Amino acid sequence: MTRILGVDPGLTRCGVGVIDLAAGRRVNLVSVDVYRSEPSLELSARIASIGNRIEELILRDKPEVIALERVYADVNVRSVMGTAQISGVVLLLANRHGLPISMHTPTEVKAAVTGSGKADKAQVGTMVAKILGLAEIPKPADAADSLAIAICHAWRGAAANMGSGESLTPAQAAWQAAERAAARKREG
Amino acid sequence: MTRILGVDPGLTRCGVGVIDLAAGRRVNLVSVDVYRSEPSLELSARIASIGNRIEELILRDKPEVIALERVYADVNVRSVMGTAQISGVVLLLANRHGLPISMHTPTEVKAAVTGSGKADKAQVGTMVAKILGLAEIPKPADAADSLAIAICHAWRGAAANMGSGESLTPAQAAWQAAERAAARKREG
Repeated sequence: MTRILGVDPGLTRCGVGVIDLAAGRRVNLVSVDVYRSEPSLELSARIASIGNRIEELILRDKPEVIALERVYADVNVRSVMGTAQISGVVLLLANRHGLPISMHTPTEVKAAVTGSGKADKAQVGTMVAKILGLAEIPKPADAADSLAIAICHAWRGAAANMGSGESLTPAQAAWQAAERAAARKREG
Repeated sequence: MTRILGVDPGLTRCGVGVIDLAAGRRVNLVSVDVYRSEPSLELSARIASIGNRIEELILRDKPEVIALERVYADVNVRSVMGTAQISGVVLLLANRHGLPISMHTPTEVKAAVTGSGKADKAQVGTMVAKILGLAEIPKPADAADSLAIAICHAWRGAAANMGSGESLTPAQAAWQAAERAAARKREG
């Protein structure tokens, strides 16, 4: 069994969902929440309040891996800076707690849970509830999205793991190298 | 006297410069460095290596305030994500160490040290060396830029402080409120 923390990073709303991956690709809900920060607060206080809550969650639910949505600079430019800053904090916390981190694009996440990379938020929420056997769709969308990211990691498996590179099969290592090359290309 | 840490955030190269602001607006160099991370490393290891070195610097040189370059999503899109992620880490560390943080745009920094918001990197480096009484221009440019950011904070003064809001004059409070409103507008 593997415990996965999925994070939908954001400064105003940050979705966090923890699931357990069991045999036969079955996944079970452990916890889900959305951490908010008050826009009237000073920026470093906002970032720290979300970072501190994520760290408390890591200590409480003890995930073995973090799955994080990959942020692109070319989408949603107005909110992307806060999202990227929270991503940086999650990446730092992952390293400090010795947790491998895997990053997944929104398209990969949608495709993993709905079969289509172009699915809308309602489809993603519906499928997350079905996959986890929940009576209701987690609200708000950031909560469902964080679970979708965790499920995406569970089902894509170690091939998408951007972690230490230990114990990868040749195919997994090739995938990881390609992801890193793509990341370097994006960073310029 | 106030000790200021200026940070030119970046994932591949992060400039850090510490200065002391003395009476008569005089500024003196304490330390300057550029922290690099190896692009072949995994992203969270890169972010943590820079974050850890900044934290060591905070503990060693004991700055009383951090001045950070404000990153915009609409410039240099290819490298902006890493820059924003490092910014997020600096904002978290500032909060965790109880340090107020002030953010300055590249235009404000250039104007503060050269008198022109359109100055090029060579002008900024030349003026940083003159202002601090250095025999040589700090290299690479990220080093000089981090000192320029610290000098900008020193000379703009508490009015640009995005910190706790304690002990501000009415004019300073109004400035801070305007900066926060502008930040909220940018975040959407």
